[in-house]
Amino acid sequence: MTGNTNASLPRLKLTYFDFDGGRGEAARLTLAIAGIEFQDCRILLKAWVDHKAQMPFHALPVLEVDGEEITQSNTINRYLGKLANLYPADRWQAALCDEIMDAIEDIGTQIVATFSIKDHAEKETARERLAEGPIPLYLTRLDSELERRGGEYFADNRLTVADLKAFVWIRHLRSGQLDYIPPDLPDRLAPLLLRQFERLNGDGRIHAYYEKRRISQASSSPGGTTS
Amino acid sequence: MTGNTNASLPRLKLTYFDFDGGRGEAARLTLAIAGIEFQDCRILLKAWVDHKAQMPFHALPVLEVDGEEITQSNTINRYLGKLANLYPADRWQAALCDEIMDAIEDIGTQIVATFSIKDHAEKETARERLAEGPIPLYLTRLDSELERRGGEYFADNRLTVADLKAFVWIRHLRSGQLDYIPPDLPDRLAPLLLRQFERLNGDGRIHAYYEKRRISQASSSPGGTTS
Repeated sequence: MTGNTNASLPRLKLTYFDFDGGRGEAARLTLAIAGIEFQDCRILLKAWVDHKAQMPFHALPVLEVDGEEITQSNTINRYLGKLANLYPADRWQAALCDEIMDAIEDIGTQIVATFSIKDHAEKETARERLAEGPIPLYLTRLDSELERRGGEYFADNRLTVADLKAFVWIRHLRSGQLDYIPPDLPDRLAPLLLRQFERLNGDGRIHAYYEKRRISQASSSPGGTTS
Repeated sequence: MTGNTNASLPRLKLTYFDFDGGRGEAARLTLAIAGIEFQDCRILLKAWVDHKAQMPFHALPVLEVDGEEITQSNTINRYLGKLANLYPADRWQAALCDEIMDAIEDIGTQIVATFSIKDHAEKETARERLAEGPIPLYLTRLDSELERRGGEYFADNRLTVADLKAFVWIRHLRSGQLDYIPPDLPDRLAPLLLRQFERLNGDGRIHAYYEKRRISQASSSPGGTTS
C-alpha cells in the first residue's frame, strides 16, 4: 500500500507490534473499516529492543502523517477517527467518545503493567487483585454507560472509535491469554458490552479485515511479517 | 457561582481534590482563563474515603455538564478547551494538542503510582528510577517538541489546554514536594518548557486566578474549603 488515491487524505504509516491487539489495534481497525490505505508497519516483539530508542517516547504506536510523527494511542485513534468519519463532531458526543477511550486506556495500562512481572507468585497476586477490583469496576461501569447511551454505541448513536477500543479490550479479556484473570468476566459482568462485542465481531467489514489478516499471516514467513 | 449568564454555555460543576494541582487543575485554569463560571467542588483528601465509591470510576476529576457526569481528566480538558476556545479546530493541530496531554497524563500516572508506596526504601527506589529514566525522557522529548512547534505553544500557535497541562506538571516537578526527585530537573533538562512555565506563571489571567485562590484559602476555615 503506497498512499491514498484520494488527494484529501494524507500519507499514513502506522507502526505497532506484530499482533492483532493492544494499543494499536483500534487504529488499524478504524483505517480498515473506512478503507483508508496506510503503511501497516509491524514490529516483531523480538526486534523491539532494536527499535525502542528510536521511538519518540520509547513506545508504540506511532503514526506518521505525511512524514510527521504523532504518538499516544488515543490521540492517534481520535485523529484517524476524524479521517474515517468514526468520531463525533458534536463536542458533547465527542466527550462521551473520549471518556470511553480514556477509561479503557486506563484499565488497559493497569493490565499491561503486569506483563513485565517476572516472579510468578507476584504476577498471580497482581492479576488477581485486578480481576477482583479494577476490571469488574470498569466492566460494570462501561456496561451501565453503554445502557444509558442506548445500549448499542457509546457515542453519537453510531459506530465510533470508542466502540472499536472496547471491542479490542473485550476480545483481549476473553482470549484466555491473561493468566489468573478469568476469561468469562465480560460474559458474567457486562452483558451489553458482550453483545456489542459479538455484533462487531460479526460486522462484515471487521470480519473481512481479520479474514485478510489470517490469509496474510498464513502466507508470511515463520515468525511473522515486519512491514 | 450559580451558572453562566451566557445562555449558550452549559451549567458546569467540576469535582476534584482541594489542592491547586493534579489531574483536575488544568480544567480549573481553562475555565478561569476563559472567565466561564462553574461550581468548583473541592473534596478534602481526608473526606475522599466517603466520596470515592460514589464516583463513576472511583476517581476524580468528574465534570457535570447540565447534570450529566463525564470523567477522565483529558476528556474533561478537551471538552472544556472547546468551550473556552483553548482547543484547536484543525484536526492535525488538535492531534498535536492531544499528544502532549496524553503524554503528560502518562508520565503523571507513573509519578502518582509512587504516592501509595508505604515502605520508604521502596518509594525511594521507585522515585529514583523515575528521576533517572522516564521523567528525563518525557522532559527532553516535550522540550524538543515545543522547539519543533515554534518554542512557545504546543499547538495552533496559541495557548491551548496542552500548554496548561504542561504548566501544571512543571510546577509540580519544581515544587519540591516530590521526595527523591530533584526539583531542578525541568531547569536542567527542558529550557523551553521552563521558559513556557515562567511565561504562563506571569500571565495576568493565571496570576489573577492564583491571587484569588490565595485570598479564598486564607479566608476559609482551617483544613480548606469543601465547595
